[in-house]
Amino acid sequence: MSHEEFMQLAIELAYDNTKNKKGKPFGALIVKNGEIVAKGVNDVLETHDPTAHAEMQAIRKACCTLGTADLSECELYASGEPCPMCLSAIYLAHFKNVYYAYTADEEEKIGLGTKYVYQQIALPMEERDIKLIKIDRNPQKNDPFALWKEITY
Amino acid sequence: MSHEEFMQLAIELAYDNTKNKKGKPFGALIVKNGEIVAKGVNDVLETHDPTAHAEMQAIRKACCTLGTADLSECELYASGEPCPMCLSAIYLAHFKNVYYAYTADEEEKIGLGTKYVYQQIALPMEERDIKLIKIDRNPQKNDPFALWKEITY
Repeated sequence: MSHEEFMQLAIELAYDNTKNKKGKPFGALIVKNGEIVAKGVNDVLETHDPTAHAEMQAIRKACCTLGTADLSECELYASGEPCPMCLSAIYLAHFKNVYYAYTADEEEKIGLGTKYVYQQIALPMEERDIKLIKIDRNPQKNDPFALWKEITY
Repeated sequence: MSHEEFMQLAIELAYDNTKNKKGKPFGALIVKNGEIVAKGVNDVLETHDPTAHAEMQAIRKACCTLGTADLSECELYASGEPCPMCLSAIYLAHFKNVYYAYTADEEEKIGLGTKYVYQQIALPMEERDIKLIKIDRNPQKNDPFALWKEITY
């Protein structure tokens, strides 16, 4: 199948997801060696899980099916340009290429954009709207980072 | 319980996760009205799911338990400063404040940093290492964005 055909399938997933009143109009699929290994749709409305974006659901399924967190040999087709959460997950999963159809601008126009989140996470911590507040660790208690270093180095 | 006490619990989750050889040294918990509503640890090594960070797991559980994707009335305690995936999810879930103990610099020092991902997602698309490639949608096929607009506007 061609890139266009895989993308058309991702778009059909998105369409059916909204048509069946199950969720927002996003679909994704992951392909390895020309075979589809996972599909995902936006399940946020149904599950209440704000992380259940189509790309995330597809990544989770692909990693479970393939038994690895490394999807560097796979390609991701997302009906819409990924949000920063999904793009970060794409980096964590080591994809090389990602294909998308609808742009971030088109997402903004129907009220489903994430430009604000992209802008926020690019800011220095102290300038963000959500405050990240440091709580000092008690140095007399167990130190998970020291343990990790001891085990893995 | 104080911020320090909740944080100590998150750090203990992180420590036990590594001590029990279950995963990386990260723990998180979500508190609403002084009560813990969800806990999470880094499950990546055990599940192969690269999105199974402690904060993500806690957010998923809290949303499932509370039946909402809106955690604006909750507070998140993360043992380590969140990666961009988790920080984006924190925005999508509408937290107001997030507390953390270990810094991004400390994460980098034990090989668990995500500064590279922060840098990458802040770049314009064409400058990123992972290529996002646009595939034009066939305009004669069903349009999920038009359907979403029709249903919701």
